Amino acid sequence: MTLPASLDLLGTPALLLDEGRMDRNIADMRRRLARFDITFRPHLKTCKSVEIARRMMDSPAGPATVSTLREAEIFAAAGVADILYAVGIVPAKLDQVAALRRTGCDLKIILDSIEQADAVAERGTALGMTFPVLIEIDSDGHRAGLLPADPRLVEVARRANTGGSELIGVMTHAGGSYDVPGVDAITAAAERERAAVVAAASAIRDAGLPCPVVSVGSTPTARFASDLTGVTEVRAGVFVFHDLVMAGLGVCAVDDIAISVLTRVIGHQREKGWTVVDAGWMAMSRDRGTARQPTDQGYGLVCDVAGQPIPDLVMIAANQEHGIIAARDGSGAKPVDLPVGTLLRILPNHACATAAQFGAYEIMGNEGAVTDRWLRFGGW
Amino acid sequence: MTLPASLDLLGTPALLLDEGRMDRNIADMRRRLARFDITFRPHLKTCKSVEIARRMMDSPAGPATVSTLREAEIFAAAGVADILYAVGIVPAKLDQVAALRRTGCDLKIILDSIEQADAVAERGTALGMTFPVLIEIDSDGHRAGLLPADPRLVEVARRANTGGSELIGVMTHAGGSYDVPGVDAITAAAERERAAVVAAASAIRDAGLPCPVVSVGSTPTARFASDLTGVTEVRAGVFVFHDLVMAGLGVCAVDDIAISVLTRVIGHQREKGWTVVDAGWMAMSRDRGTARQPTDQGYGLVCDVAGQPIPDLVMIAANQEHGIIAARDGSGAKPVDLPVGTLLRILPNHACATAAQFGAYEIMGNEGAVTDRWLRFGGW
Repeated sequence: MTLPASLDLLGTPALLLDEGRMDRNIADMRRRLARFDITFRPHLKTCKSVEIARRMMDSPAGPATVSTLREAEIFAAAGVADILYAVGIVPAKLDQVAALRRTGCDLKIILDSIEQADAVAERGTALGMTFPVLIEIDSDGHRAGLLPADPRLVEVARRANTGGSELIGVMTHAGGSYDVPGVDAITAAAERERAAVVAAASAIRDAGLPCPVVSVGSTPTARFASDLTGVTEVRAGVFVFHDLVMAGLGVCAVDDIAISVLTRVIGHQREKGWTVVDAGWMAMSRDRGTARQPTDQGYGLVCDVAGQPIPDLVMIAANQEHGIIAARDGSGAKPVDLPVGTLLRILPNHACATAAQFGAYEIMGNEGAVTDRWLRFGGW
Repeated sequence: MTLPASLDLLGTPALLLDEGRMDRNIADMRRRLARFDITFRPHLKTCKSVEIARRMMDSPAGPATVSTLREAEIFAAAGVADILYAVGIVPAKLDQVAALRRTGCDLKIILDSIEQADAVAERGTALGMTFPVLIEIDSDGHRAGLLPADPRLVEVARRANTGGSELIGVMTHAGGSYDVPGVDAITAAAERERAAVVAAASAIRDAGLPCPVVSVGSTPTARFASDLTGVTEVRAGVFVFHDLVMAGLGVCAVDDIAISVLTRVIGHQREKGWTVVDAGWMAMSRDRGTARQPTDQGYGLVCDVAGQPIPDLVMIAANQEHGIIAARDGSGAKPVDLPVGTLLRILPNHACATAAQFGAYEIMGNEGAVTDRWLRFGGW
């Protein structure tokens, strides 16, 4: 397709991806994880793009992590042959998993209850198939999973290793690491994540059951783990783009953030110090993840068209297709005059949420020109 | 296409649309507005579906309101010939507007500044085209627009009625009505909305300029306006589905809400009273519009598969593909046992935001079976 060479030829709002920053983020994560004897299984829920997935993975065949069966289907069709579906399985989805496995994709599932384990074992038997299963472990109380000391753990493991189900390991996600700023606190969260899943694996092995895979993952803990003894694989996804929440935690710098929303100024309320732009919550998403951080970035941090942040200018409010840009509360920053038509770039709070609002990435090369357009998918 | 007759054959999460409730909501809005001598110009930003638009509009040709030029293009291609693009125009979008007008669609634009008016007049002249323009009026300080008493109003009007620009009226949106609960407060907001735009029209006419169209609109004010003297048209969109924010304002009842997200239970943290489901913020959106209302509905109110709310059960937290269901804080409601695989339906805070996360509506007929699938679009 013919692409606009210059940002001012793009319609707005548009999702920009700085290819150089993305490549740097991927290289940085790989370099950090290379210190450990682990498999890197990148999470593709953030990018939902085959082009980007191929840059994140060891090979076009994977390994990879996904959050929906639609992701599994699309990436499997693109040649990814080793996929972990990292959301607890329900029996109603097993036939879809089976269909994908029959195409040759080694799709693994997770669960954390006896009722799920029994359903998987039974359905596998009925289909003449063996589902590879990991047990989800709760390492920080934020979501799903069994505690390592839960007496049900070994029973779930036993039932997940019978009939049409094969226990291949344990996994956890330190989602709580999104709430602990600073390298030391994140390193401590990584150690809690490691300790929980390694303890669970030990309990399972002590009962005479197999547990070859010990999987951890979140962008903060993957970046700042100091010890991964006993861990066999690491998952992470948002690092590919990073975002303001990660920057607020100290996981990246603001100038590591690889995606931004291109927008145009459509008006002003100068008495209030407001500039109105054509990107609202439909473009940015409603994610307000920095609201609980020391620096609240509103609906996003405002940059000039070259990507340079304008000091203390944020999107303070958002309607569906209107964003209101103003000085951050209490910053005392002087209003900046941005005439109608001015192009701005807004850095997002949460890369997964903002990227999901768009059907494509406009790829920016090192010269700041648009060099390509990569489709992304959504839905289930 | 072959459709599942029963909800338990649908993949989850899925967006359900109760056709009977939608038709009732449309009929109710039409009945209320029939008391006034106005044109109804429904806003299609909520539905983004040709099938639904046709039920909302007077005729397949319109009139209609949109929030993006992509909406304008898709609805124009489907035969809608009278469209208001209700977001302030930027010069960079004028050629796209011109291209649509050349296809025979009477696409109108809005603006609120001299610089925009001059740009429209000049570009229209250059293209040999006359753009029909409305001036946006600020009726409650919440977003864009000129105050009716702003001395710039008449100057903008004058410049918007020269060259390739024709002034056809004024418009406002009482977005502030989303923050005032109760019929009396909303009726008062509707009167402020009416008074502002009628005053602006008078100022323009007093200057000897034309102002045939006087347009107001928001679902709350459209529903509870008691007087529309001087107003010629009303816009509203979210009423087609309604949502928990509208219910919290008293604009609708909970059982008027026509869309819900179908989800399945994937696990539990029973010690905490949590049920985990496979709809997270990717399905519900991050919209927390009820957080500022007396009853905070979290990420949504939980109903059984028949659509009956389960008392005080809400989605208290959401990850990308996980929702955590629990008793509303302080309600003291007893935990409900919902086994893995249980189908639930979650009513959304904000219909526009939740519907935007999906590519299709699963249509439920009066018997509760799925009777059809209607595509919806997104993007810009």
